[in-house]
Amino acid sequence: MTIREMLEAHPQPASRDRDVVVRCIEACIECAAACTSCADADLGESDPQELVRCIRLCLDCADLCDSTGRIVTRQTASDAGVIRAAVEGCVVACSACRKECERHAEHHEHCRICAQVCSRCEQACNDLLESIG
Amino acid sequence: MTIREMLEAHPQPASRDRDVVVRCIEACIECAAACTSCADADLGESDPQELVRCIRLCLDCADLCDSTGRIVTRQTASDAGVIRAAVEGCVVACSACRKECERHAEHHEHCRICAQVCSRCEQACNDLLESIG
Amino acid sequence: MTIREMLEAHPQPASRDRDVVVRCIEACIECAAACTSCADADLGESDPQELVRCIRLCLDCADLCDSTGRIVTRQTASDAGVIRAAVEGCVVACSACRKECERHAEHHEHCRICAQVCSRCEQACNDLLESIG
Amino acid sequence: MTIREMLEAHPQPASRDRDVVVRCIEACIECAAACTSCADADLGESDPQELVRCIRLCLDCADLCDSTGRIVTRQTASDAGVIRAAVEGCVVACSACRKECERHAEHHEHCRICAQVCSRCEQACNDLLESIG
Repeated sequence: MTIREMLEAHPQPASRDRDVVVRCIEACIECAAACTSCADADLGESDPQELVRCIRLCLDCADLCDSTGRIVTRQTASDAGVIRAAVEGCVVACSACRKECERHAEHHEHCRICAQVCSRCEQACNDLLESIG
Repeated sequence: MTIREMLEAHPQPASRDRDVVVRCIEACIECAAACTSCADADLGESDPQELVRCIRLCLDCADLCDSTGRIVTRQTASDAGVIRAAVEGCVVACSACRKECERHAEHHEHCRICAQVCSRCEQACNDLLESIG
Repeated sequence: MTIREMLEAHPQPASRDRDVVVRCIEACIECAAACTSCADADLGESDPQELVRCIRLCLDCADLCDSTGRIVTRQTASDAGVIRAAVEGCVVACSACRKECERHAEHHEHCRICAQVCSRCEQACNDLLESIG
Repeated sequence: MTIREMLEAHPQPASRDRDVVVRCIEACIECAAACTSCADADLGESDPQELVRCIRLCLDCADLCDSTGRIVTRQTASDAGVIRAAVEGCVVACSACRKECERHAEHHEHCRICAQVCSRCEQACNDLLESIG
């Protein structure tokens, strides 16, 4: 909501489809938060050793979603190549994290939610990549 | 919304008031995004030189809100002193950024919105500090 | 080395003692990296469950050192209150992380090194706080 | 130096060539710091409007180098696809930032240094990509 208002108030209106941009930013921000929380919930489980790969991929995914969200948010003097590279990296991280979280979704509700959020972010990033062309 | 679900799915329920924690996390995340966007919008204005201090404080506030949001999100093996120190730093950054954005709010809608978001984050952080005691 | 050169090339020379500023930035950067690595090494040990609090504090300390390093690096239109708040938060995180790492220093070399790096960062941050006054 | 010691103390020795990994991490960390400083120095120049694209690309490059440095630092349960995606994104950001900084290198010493640091990071990232295969 705030992101949309901020982009509407920007002196240089987005040249690409604004809805796609807003959804991608919101998805990256949500995914960074979910992955930070999932890594932490994994760590708090009675069997963190079973979840080592999940923690690792959640930490990586949080970091890439965080930087990608910042990069896609910026509208001034954008470089399409840099945006594409960041968003492509984000898709790979979200996909790997989603697959690992899905493996634990039956036993851990936080992994089930995190997998869904990663999936939404993958989709939103792919939609942005398609709109950039 | 996702943050609340994630914290409800956490194996170690928050000892502090969960609503206050959720609001603080959401406010930090929103404020990090608004400040990233405001710094970028400032940079895209025809007079970025007038907005140098605003850009600087928005970049700082985005960085502190980002790290504070991550720290408050984590529920496992929390250290109250570290959380307090991060949140206190966030309050100072939000307050300084809000005051500077308010100075430009009449001329730049993105500064007006960003000042409001900073103010909400200040409040949510202060509420968390009060609940930690 | 690069940080010193960059600050010497800055159009607005640091008003505070440049050596103290450079040491604080370098210490924050080194500490962010050491804490990221220590959390990861803890996770790779055969007994991550013993190291849950160490992982948690290393993640928090990495995040605060990272944002503090960025904030102290910036020399344009600095706000002494924001810098002080960030650096004070960093001291608390480094101190908590150092104490926890010291508890594992005999068994885990990465914790021993990380505790030393946290201690250096605490000192460098305190020196900066003293120079700000 | 610390990074090398930390990786040597890691319970799971790097399967890839450790020197290449260490150089990539150090280059990402150095580049994140140089880009944060260059964006800030640009902002402090008397003509920030000439440097808007440089500021933008430095902010993006700092964010991607930061997250890539963290991801390459982690040795536990690594996913080669995620590492490759992050490092490839970093190469693109460093290359774009270097080219823009080179345009200002004659007039601004901080851009000259930053371009060199970006170039080293590009090289170190490409070396890591080659070693991953």
